[in-house]
Amino acid sequence: MKDFKKLVLIAAVTIAACFFLVPETVFAQNVVDDAFRYVRVLDIFFMLFLVAFLMMFIKKFEWEIALATCIGLGGSFVLYTFLKVEVLQQYFSVMPATESPSLWGIAVVMSITYIIAMGVPLGQVKHWQYLLLALLFVPCFLGIEWFEWEYLEGVYDAGGSILVHMFAAYWGWGVILGLQEKRESVIEEPMRTTTHSVGWVWLSAMLLWMLWPSFVSVLLPSAAVWPTAITTYFAGFGSFLTAYITEYAINKEVDPLVYCYAMLAGLVAIGTLCNVVGIWTGFAIGLGAGVISVLGFNYLAPFLTEKTGVLDSMGVNNLHGICGIFGGIVAIPWAGAVEIVAIAFSLGFGLFSGAICGLITRAGGRPDHPFDDADLFPLEPGREEPF
Amino acid sequence: MKDFKKLVLIAAVTIAACFFLVPETVFAQNVVDDAFRYVRVLDIFFMLFLVAFLMMFIKKFEWEIALATCIGLGGSFVLYTFLKVEVLQQYFSVMPATESPSLWGIAVVMSITYIIAMGVPLGQVKHWQYLLLALLFVPCFLGIEWFEWEYLEGVYDAGGSILVHMFAAYWGWGVILGLQEKRESVIEEPMRTTTHSVGWVWLSAMLLWMLWPSFVSVLLPSAAVWPTAITTYFAGFGSFLTAYITEYAINKEVDPLVYCYAMLAGLVAIGTLCNVVGIWTGFAIGLGAGVISVLGFNYLAPFLTEKTGVLDSMGVNNLHGICGIFGGIVAIPWAGAVEIVAIAFSLGFGLFSGAICGLITRAGGRPDHPFDDADLFPLEPGREEPF
Amino acid sequence: MKDFKKLVLIAAVTIAACFFLVPETVFAQNVVDDAFRYVRVLDIFFMLFLVAFLMMFIKKFEWEIALATCIGLGGSFVLYTFLKVEVLQQYFSVMPATESPSLWGIAVVMSITYIIAMGVPLGQVKHWQYLLLALLFVPCFLGIEWFEWEYLEGVYDAGGSILVHMFAAYWGWGVILGLQEKRESVIEEPMRTTTHSVGWVWLSAMLLWMLWPSFVSVLLPSAAVWPTAITTYFAGFGSFLTAYITEYAINKEVDPLVYCYAMLAGLVAIGTLCNVVGIWTGFAIGLGAGVISVLGFNYLAPFLTEKTGVLDSMGVNNLHGICGIFGGIVAIPWAGAVEIVAIAFSLGFGLFSGAICGLITRAGGRPDHPFDDADLFPLEPGREEPF
Repeated sequence: MKDFKKLVLIAAVTIAACFFLVPETVFAQNVVDDAFRYVRVLDIFFMLFLVAFLMMFIKKFEWEIALATCIGLGGSFVLYTFLKVEVLQQYFSVMPATESPSLWGIAVVMSITYIIAMGVPLGQVKHWQYLLLALLFVPCFLGIEWFEWEYLEGVYDAGGSILVHMFAAYWGWGVILGLQEKRESVIEEPMRTTTHSVGWVWLSAMLLWMLWPSFVSVLLPSAAVWPTAITTYFAGFGSFLTAYITEYAINKEVDPLVYCYAMLAGLVAIGTLCNVVGIWTGFAIGLGAGVISVLGFNYLAPFLTEKTGVLDSMGVNNLHGICGIFGGIVAIPWAGAVEIVAIAFSLGFGLFSGAICGLITRAGGRPDHPFDDADLFPLEPGREEPF
Repeated sequence: MKDFKKLVLIAAVTIAACFFLVPETVFAQNVVDDAFRYVRVLDIFFMLFLVAFLMMFIKKFEWEIALATCIGLGGSFVLYTFLKVEVLQQYFSVMPATESPSLWGIAVVMSITYIIAMGVPLGQVKHWQYLLLALLFVPCFLGIEWFEWEYLEGVYDAGGSILVHMFAAYWGWGVILGLQEKRESVIEEPMRTTTHSVGWVWLSAMLLWMLWPSFVSVLLPSAAVWPTAITTYFAGFGSFLTAYITEYAINKEVDPLVYCYAMLAGLVAIGTLCNVVGIWTGFAIGLGAGVISVLGFNYLAPFLTEKTGVLDSMGVNNLHGICGIFGGIVAIPWAGAVEIVAIAFSLGFGLFSGAICGLITRAGGRPDHPFDDADLFPLEPGREEPF
Repeated sequence: MKDFKKLVLIAAVTIAACFFLVPETVFAQNVVDDAFRYVRVLDIFFMLFLVAFLMMFIKKFEWEIALATCIGLGGSFVLYTFLKVEVLQQYFSVMPATESPSLWGIAVVMSITYIIAMGVPLGQVKHWQYLLLALLFVPCFLGIEWFEWEYLEGVYDAGGSILVHMFAAYWGWGVILGLQEKRESVIEEPMRTTTHSVGWVWLSAMLLWMLWPSFVSVLLPSAAVWPTAITTYFAGFGSFLTAYITEYAINKEVDPLVYCYAMLAGLVAIGTLCNVVGIWTGFAIGLGAGVISVLGFNYLAPFLTEKTGVLDSMGVNNLHGICGIFGGIVAIPWAGAVEIVAIAFSLGFGLFSGAICGLITRAGGRPDHPFDDADLFPLEPGREEPF
């Protein structure tokens, strides 16, 4: 008995000594998590700029998109940090945030959501209104973030199908509905692309595709990243194939812009289940999403434009909107009814809060020349070139 | 004696307790390996898409390359995973695979090998035949993978000079030899590049160069990555210099396409010894490979086209073929005769299995307009532009 | 007492056994550090090539910049390694270097400094002189590296505002001053940009912005990377906003080239304090730097060209020069007078050593056609295109 007590004592002392002597190993786990998250957060910043290039295909309307992305990122990220760290954390008990990698992970996710959403009113607001909209977007995103993550329980949405993609699409549609006076056709002459500008779209789509695992896994623990990544890629493989087959079946040719967007459809849809299902389920979701997105571009988009007068020139609804909904619906067997609530809130609150932001923005007037860099940039002499 | 037994007992208990209490540190090593491999695997996906852009320099034949890359990646990766995980692992005892990062590392290496190989018949098959060829490629790659890694012992090829580059080149040449009816000239009018499209080639070549260490080290243990990476870079520095000097010495000017390909020659060649030799040996290999690749472009390529009728428009043999062989040959002093067997098998089995795939593909017919996006894409109105 | 000695003995044996049995955990910390640095070093290689594309906006003068970057990187990196590892380390006691990731980190920082510096004489030297200048640059950089890191103590410059940006700008200005015969106007016809080439500048600027945290943190310990990264991003947000506002206030429109350079101003300036201050101080520095850079482009640059005859076509002084000085000045309250010495040395030694390199280069003659790819590249048939 005395021996046993001695043994326990000795063991305790030794273990304590071990911990004291090997702090670097205990420490290592945090460093690994932080280093791994550093990589994924930088990847998402990369994606954010690629989203801009994904939209830069309209002739003589490229530079304003790039500038709007920069000021939109700067404005939204700074305001979001300020509200979370200096206001919510100090004076309220909701969504506690520290200056940890997780905070910066969600912050850049918020900013990329705005850049996606900006695609809907793109070309139809004045340059400084991109910054205004970015600032107005921040409290709206805090609203859905609070609702989905704190108010609801059990929503499956690690990769942001509902929080990011659906909300971006419907907030953006809310803005344009609040902004436009009537069913209007803002474009007098058809927008034209160039081989050169479509090259940017191919590059952006491919690299967004490649970086997507970092996006869906940014808030997951390190050990969950690989399984999530590979399921996500399999969803992407599915869209690669069905976007091609569906578009070719409908038109006997492939519109490169439709393909570049629809190849990402599976990645949008897998956001709800990316850390839950395996590769073959992921592949199946990707196959389905590729079909749905191409159908959206070919049939739903003209119908919606006809009914609402909205020109969703970047196809935000066809990629992020309906594929986000599809992702939410396929997750219902796993998550239950709460998933339906999350989908409905994202759609409803997105349209409602976006419309309010659109009405506010409308007070500042509309641009004289929609979809035209001449709004802000000197177009001579380089831009006199025939492309 | 009794004290000694007690001491051993106490020590054993304590060590067990330590392991029980510090699972996160034991765990950390796996997480580090996996996180580090995540970075390298994503880099290789990046490279795969860059290989596509490296080939997108022919006017009005850019988009089909991009689409072929997407469907080729999707098709080959999914079939390879299916065969390895669901067939070979379940029913055979060769090449056991688990759904681990290593599996996805070799899978994306397989897919990039196909994209390189696709460069040989590029523009000379119908769009859906890129997918067919991707599916046919998978068993061929499993064949060489089994031969080099399981059947042979002691091959030096961590970075894939023989498995990836040589096999890509000669499988691709096999396909075109099986595909074409006779010595034919498929091109009626000369292919033309544009400043814009050559810009893509510069960007792709530079970024491929930069990412190459992730490619050669993807299956190595974490601790071996840095020495491998830096030896690889020194091989790249060598090619930067001799590709420039050799091309200028021959032509008194530098063909940007030749330079962009030949600057990668050292990186192709170092694949056999990248984890074995130091920086100065690596540099010497890179110096040699740069010279060999430029000589290949200037003298060997016209000779082979004359003799075989094959138009290797992307210069796959001049970069991947002969530099892969060069890499294999310089490794013989380290590896011995087995390296010669590996080189010979990659060349012979590549040509043979490729020719069979080419013959199968030939049954589906040939495209009406080689090297022309009009095969699949709407060329109006953007493509009416003068570039 | 005897029990106590026994206890100590047992504990010591057990701890030793633990270390022996868990080498992978002790080992892990180094692997984490190395893996994390691998990511940042590759990011800097990425940035180095992006710096080239940031300068590729002049019509018919794009390819020589790309080639100069490749041979400049190869030449400078190899010589620097040789001097550090084979000469300084073997025969001298200054700046000991091992073949560790840290060495390659500082080596690529040295090379990117040369590529930035090359921007000043760009287009005004013969193609092989880019390689000569790269080799001449290496001992100059070793000089400032020794002075700032070994001779001085307590300089705040983890992110290289003084060592990299200031030195690049003033060494480059030294070269052109040593190179040109008199106040000369090298350009007969105005340089023209194209929409396409300006697209490269947008992409490069955005991705440089995104990758900047890896640059400023490359030599810092792992645990310091995140705080440094996020302070750096906040400096970047500041420049996004004030570069836009200042440029618009001055010109009522935004010159895309000025904006693409000035958006990086905060990142240049934060290099001194990036690992010292928090996000809001970083943001303030970025706000200030954005204003300063735009003022430099609009007012200082024409004044300096008038006074010196130097055509700093890439605006190196307006971004790297004056924002580096600004970064140094704001660090004085933290670092003290030593920071002033470092600033003065970077300016003075940069101009002096650069001028000597310029005089040496001048002996090889000047190019017949400044800013013209025809110096080295075949311009037919692709380049006959209207862009």
